[in-house]
Amino acid sequence: MTVYGFDSSNGLAARIARLLGDRYVAMETKTFPDGEEYLRVPEKPEGAAIVVASTYSPQEKRLMKLLMAVEALSQWGAPIVVAVPYLAYARQDKRFLEGEPISVRIVLSSLEALGVDALVVVDVHQPHAVEEWFKQPWRNVIPYREVARYFRDVLRDPLVLAPDRGAVERARLVAGELGAPYDFLVKERDRVTGEVRVKPKELSVEGRDVVIVDDIISTGGTMALAAKNSLEAGARHVYAACTHAVMVKGALDRLLSSGIEEVVATDTVPSPVSKITVAPSLAEAVREILGEIA
Amino acid sequence: MTVYGFDSSNGLAARIARLLGDRYVAMETKTFPDGEEYLRVPEKPEGAAIVVASTYSPQEKRLMKLLMAVEALSQWGAPIVVAVPYLAYARQDKRFLEGEPISVRIVLSSLEALGVDALVVVDVHQPHAVEEWFKQPWRNVIPYREVARYFRDVLRDPLVLAPDRGAVERARLVAGELGAPYDFLVKERDRVTGEVRVKPKELSVEGRDVVIVDDIISTGGTMALAAKNSLEAGARHVYAACTHAVMVKGALDRLLSSGIEEVVATDTVPSPVSKITVAPSLAEAVREILGEIA
Repeated sequence: MTVYGFDSSNGLAARIARLLGDRYVAMETKTFPDGEEYLRVPEKPEGAAIVVASTYSPQEKRLMKLLMAVEALSQWGAPIVVAVPYLAYARQDKRFLEGEPISVRIVLSSLEALGVDALVVVDVHQPHAVEEWFKQPWRNVIPYREVARYFRDVLRDPLVLAPDRGAVERARLVAGELGAPYDFLVKERDRVTGEVRVKPKELSVEGRDVVIVDDIISTGGTMALAAKNSLEAGARHVYAACTHAVMVKGALDRLLSSGIEEVVATDTVPSPVSKITVAPSLAEAVREILGEIA
Repeated sequence: MTVYGFDSSNGLAARIARLLGDRYVAMETKTFPDGEEYLRVPEKPEGAAIVVASTYSPQEKRLMKLLMAVEALSQWGAPIVVAVPYLAYARQDKRFLEGEPISVRIVLSSLEALGVDALVVVDVHQPHAVEEWFKQPWRNVIPYREVARYFRDVLRDPLVLAPDRGAVERARLVAGELGAPYDFLVKERDRVTGEVRVKPKELSVEGRDVVIVDDIISTGGTMALAAKNSLEAGARHVYAACTHAVMVKGALDRLLSSGIEEVVATDTVPSPVSKITVAPSLAEAVREILGEIA
């Protein structure tokens, strides 16, 4: 098979090709003076074609280039597997208000309409949305082994926390690898001041190294509050880990000034804290899904 | 029916609603801090939904918002007609080189996958590409009446020229409205200097007001050469008219410094020369296609 990459791959295409022992081909890309994107597949695939393209900002340009890669590859009739480390619009996964679109459906149905045979995503916000709107085989990679490996030699008495009940499975997986306990944070409002605080549902943070694990850090507000309250409750150190460092302007400063020891993310979205590569889990999922569609 | 517009409509949604005597609704839109677009249809359609969205630069963001509008409207099950005054990626309509995508197929198949019932485009670059990749009813509007009306009282002894043989039908239509002759330009290379010049295939420009009519002005290079050579051959004035003023940086200066009297375009793409509205032809095509899908 052949693994195709371009700027949106953030190095993951080349890493995956190396891990799988397969050929890596860089797409030709440019932008026309009128703003339209151009892409060309310079070498036809040997066997299946794997396209690795993350769709962080500018999301729509990266989506277009991904779709162009798929459409171009379709001319040879080979199976096409698309690996999308960060799936744009995955948080717009239902109609929160009447009149809103299910935007993630647009991304998924566009891929499907062009003949994608299988999809691998990483820690997608709501897996049920992919299940609903993408009818071909697909995998959701949770890079918990890579995250746990990063923290293994850093932490003393670790406690892994999820920022809310919905995120607890990710924390459970990381904690399992670390041999550590896990819990999720619950909100409580001070009856006098009205101030919102968070604390673990069951366990105590006192004297422990706390790692808060989430899928996305965007504004960093949730993480910053969790860190502040954990330190106030006696945590020794607080670390913040996420899969996707979407981090909008000011987020990293907000996190570090809340007392967080270190912010760590994977390389699904490039950022100053994207220190962990998801390449091993992603390569494994690509290999598995190739077996399924073969 | 209900006509929906937003910034990408460039005023055409409201104009069409007025011409058809129908309700106009402005979409709610915003951009999230992480760069993702948000759109909401604030009022459900009465009868069919008409979305008017041009997809000039930034093309991919405008395409995404158009697709979001369609997906959101699909929740009510009403027929959806999409009017796209300028269709992005329409010039990437075949594989010029092996390994290239047919990018316009991506745009068309995404619209179709979301359930668009009919499509109206304006002076699309290669109508055969729409025919091939969009299987629902569609119309291509050539705004020749609007262009001719603009020039009717301006020109003396007009001659309408197409910049090449492929563009001659548009020139024929404009000329017909003006009661003027038409021709297309052919290239000739000076055997001594190697310089490329253009001149009409059959007719003479001498003493005439020449209007060169094309679908898109992009760099303006073709138009500028045609104007320069026409003036050298004795044309009284040269006017440049196009449907889509895509005009990249420096194009307008290039055109005006070539001796062109005036550059005029329609409002499919906003620009300083977009003085002609396509609303009448577009409204008529929307009405026709609604009859077809009713």
